[in-house]
Amino acid sequence: MVTTTWNRRHVLSLEDFSPAEYETVLQTAASFQEVLSRRTKKVPALQGQVITNLFFEPSTRTRSSFELAAKRLSADTLNFAPGTSSMTKGETILDTAKTYLALGTDLMVIRHREAGVPQAIAQEMDRLQTNVGVLNAGDGQHEHPSQALLDLLTICNLLDPKVPQLSLLKGKKVAIVGDILHSRVARSNIWSLTASGAEVHLAGPPTLLPRWFADFVAEAEKTQPDVPRKLMMHWQLEPALRDADFVMTLRLQQERMTQHLLPSLREYHQQFGITGDRLKLCKPDVKVLHPGPVNRGVEISSELMDDPNFSLISQQVTSGVAVRMALLYLMGSGKPGGEA
Amino acid sequence: MVTTTWNRRHVLSLEDFSPAEYETVLQTAASFQEVLSRRTKKVPALQGQVITNLFFEPSTRTRSSFELAAKRLSADTLNFAPGTSSMTKGETILDTAKTYLALGTDLMVIRHREAGVPQAIAQEMDRLQTNVGVLNAGDGQHEHPSQALLDLLTICNLLDPKVPQLSLLKGKKVAIVGDILHSRVARSNIWSLTASGAEVHLAGPPTLLPRWFADFVAEAEKTQPDVPRKLMMHWQLEPALRDADFVMTLRLQQERMTQHLLPSLREYHQQFGITGDRLKLCKPDVKVLHPGPVNRGVEISSELMDDPNFSLISQQVTSGVAVRMALLYLMGSGKPGGEA
Amino acid sequence: MVTTTWNRRHVLSLEDFSPAEYETVLQTAASFQEVLSRRTKKVPALQGQVITNLFFEPSTRTRSSFELAAKRLSADTLNFAPGTSSMTKGETILDTAKTYLALGTDLMVIRHREAGVPQAIAQEMDRLQTNVGVLNAGDGQHEHPSQALLDLLTICNLLDPKVPQLSLLKGKKVAIVGDILHSRVARSNIWSLTASGAEVHLAGPPTLLPRWFADFVAEAEKTQPDVPRKLMMHWQLEPALRDADFVMTLRLQQERMTQHLLPSLREYHQQFGITGDRLKLCKPDVKVLHPGPVNRGVEISSELMDDPNFSLISQQVTSGVAVRMALLYLMGSGKPGGEA
Repeated sequence: MVTTTWNRRHVLSLEDFSPAEYETVLQTAASFQEVLSRRTKKVPALQGQVITNLFFEPSTRTRSSFELAAKRLSADTLNFAPGTSSMTKGETILDTAKTYLALGTDLMVIRHREAGVPQAIAQEMDRLQTNVGVLNAGDGQHEHPSQALLDLLTICNLLDPKVPQLSLLKGKKVAIVGDILHSRVARSNIWSLTASGAEVHLAGPPTLLPRWFADFVAEAEKTQPDVPRKLMMHWQLEPALRDADFVMTLRLQQERMTQHLLPSLREYHQQFGITGDRLKLCKPDVKVLHPGPVNRGVEISSELMDDPNFSLISQQVTSGVAVRMALLYLMGSGKPGGEA
Repeated sequence: MVTTTWNRRHVLSLEDFSPAEYETVLQTAASFQEVLSRRTKKVPALQGQVITNLFFEPSTRTRSSFELAAKRLSADTLNFAPGTSSMTKGETILDTAKTYLALGTDLMVIRHREAGVPQAIAQEMDRLQTNVGVLNAGDGQHEHPSQALLDLLTICNLLDPKVPQLSLLKGKKVAIVGDILHSRVARSNIWSLTASGAEVHLAGPPTLLPRWFADFVAEAEKTQPDVPRKLMMHWQLEPALRDADFVMTLRLQQERMTQHLLPSLREYHQQFGITGDRLKLCKPDVKVLHPGPVNRGVEISSELMDDPNFSLISQQVTSGVAVRMALLYLMGSGKPGGEA
Repeated sequence: MVTTTWNRRHVLSLEDFSPAEYETVLQTAASFQEVLSRRTKKVPALQGQVITNLFFEPSTRTRSSFELAAKRLSADTLNFAPGTSSMTKGETILDTAKTYLALGTDLMVIRHREAGVPQAIAQEMDRLQTNVGVLNAGDGQHEHPSQALLDLLTICNLLDPKVPQLSLLKGKKVAIVGDILHSRVARSNIWSLTASGAEVHLAGPPTLLPRWFADFVAEAEKTQPDVPRKLMMHWQLEPALRDADFVMTLRLQQERMTQHLLPSLREYHQQFGITGDRLKLCKPDVKVLHPGPVNRGVEISSELMDDPNFSLISQQVTSGVAVRMALLYLMGSGKPGGEA
């Protein structure tokens, strides 16, 4: 295992992640990628620890990824099922979290449709002087840190298959395309990509990338004055794609249409859908990422999605298990039952 | 492990529990509390055994508690999910239970909204000459034995942190407040608390503690003539709280209002809600219990619920895992795959 | 373990199963029956492997059977829950399968209400040059191979408790009764039973066993010309039951009535329900099978279902775990993490 230090109890946001923390996650994940290439893909690192998935917003793929990461660390898992829960019985979210704390949970992985819920639970865990760590698995339109970290690992693996490092992305041009406004994936990626020194170009229609988002961009550029951030906004696809090294398309929620933010899926695809033709604007070895699940023919053409020369979508899913193992390991290894 | 004898195949009700059985559960649970304080919180006691949670009535917190108890005993678990079940396909409850028997279940944990279902399944298991044990995890308005046993352990832990014993409760005054009529938790607690020699005071509005409940009380006092039972009914809160050592509030189902059993939640809280002010009637070191999930501001004030000087609610959840490990261990250890 | 060869990556259908493959499954299952009779019922055969249950059509009993089989082989399991899935988010079935592939799945167990879905996923796994195996756990009205194999094992166990072999069934008369048209269980059993040399008699009302089904029968008789197939159709119960050694009743979906395929359940029971009286037409030691869940008093009388002298229903459920262990073991043991 990597011997770098890690002092973070919770992983709630990448906004204040330091370069050293990114490196620690990348290197720990790389060591778990090595484990996952072995005949026996399990390590006893978190044996006897309990990891609870509190998914107030249902999600099969992300929950499966965390569940598998936990199992491969030999932890026990509990799953909170929203449909059959006490939530319908009037219990507050904090009381539900405290119940799982009292049951013996060591780490909580939390997803909720409201921004700030994982933060609120983490604060409560600290206030109660527990050493339970909270991992944000997606909160409203705020952040989804493990998704951005798996995107980072996927890109780094491509740039240097041996040692993933933040600096590999320096000067690379990354386009993030689509529903920026509603995307927690975009927000987390903005922090990690700008921290790496990449040039980040946001592109989307004005309804999904409103002009006032420039305030967020300006704010983001100020937060770490020692790392000059390169973050630009476009309301057309072309300037974002031109000479891009990586294109991240975002999932388009179908309800955006009923909210009158879009005329039709077809029109969206015509303006912002990623196709083989459009990729000709990019670097010849450009790669495409998507957090999934994909609406084929909307965010990305079906042919492009299945083209292994361009699509990194499967690699993202695979990287996700290694990154989540790394996060759970780093958060959990200082606890009783964790490796010393 | 404790070396006391245990001859009970099923745990369906506390009505006929003997003092020796209470002591065995308490001492076995205490030994598991010691396990749960270790670095590695698992024991191989039930390795290879299959524990099936047949929760016909959904319950996240109780199911999670049983699931974690089973995992910490190294058993394998199966969960029966009512929503996606054969129940909608016309299969009878007994046939569902027999299917899980034939799959290889060693112990069944059963919750159902109708009283008597766990008993019926236990009878069927005996009739078929299996040695499968059945644990009642709540049946209608009848009983919820593991809840009363975890309440008992929680109280005993407080009275003597070293050795939990039934006799610690002798002469203590315990108030059970609220919807007695519909509460399986109250019924199970009545048996365990009166068996301990505590003085039990029931308090609630006449709609939720009807006068005919006196028949149940009279019956309860007769069942074990060698242990004089002290059980009283009140239709006001004050006489129950006066000089009480412990106050158990019961969950109020919101549907009680639509059934015209209550004018409003606010009015209920005014008459029977537990608050810091009202606790001044009790002993100075009084403690409050609640089986959860709590309706804050209804059964108990929000401030009181969060006050660690008075509230035992978190301890109850924690005790639950140890008590359920004890019950599963005692029921399962004589079986193939269990410890000798 | 059995040392016979096994070259099949997927188990999708029994139509092209060879006699040697049937024997391998039967003997491997028998060796796992021996494991299941031990004190510790687990083997480390698939430790570190991930088996994903993709049950697009919900099924508690079949999923529990596969889940327990996987656990007893020490595999890790992931469950795809249709209600809370990306399916509602517009993702295609193949993309869902590819996500679970990328997560690290070694074997997929797939149920879907449309015929052909497991086949399509298996083709995709091959096209992507993975070595992931796909097991069909029921696809529409097509096939349910593991059900027919557990029926076969159940019957063989009865005919020779020591060594289950296909040839034991040679010349036996087996009646399959009920909703043949809509039954994937019937179709899989037709392949396994005719392959064994048994005489198979199908019986049902013309709405559920239409005359054009004769085309399927004719086709089935041609597929393996070296094994003469004996397969007959009847629109009355009596000729099928006369001197039968085994009677398989099929589950009647209640929606068949709303589809005007049946006048009433009562009428169906009068014409095709299996009762003690009707069994007098059969051999004296006749046995009855049903894939479950049973509509008591419809497909079979309640008394007969509970009569251990005639009913093999519990044995079928028990055989299911051994057969599924065998299939998962055979499909998975050549993989990394599987036994050499």
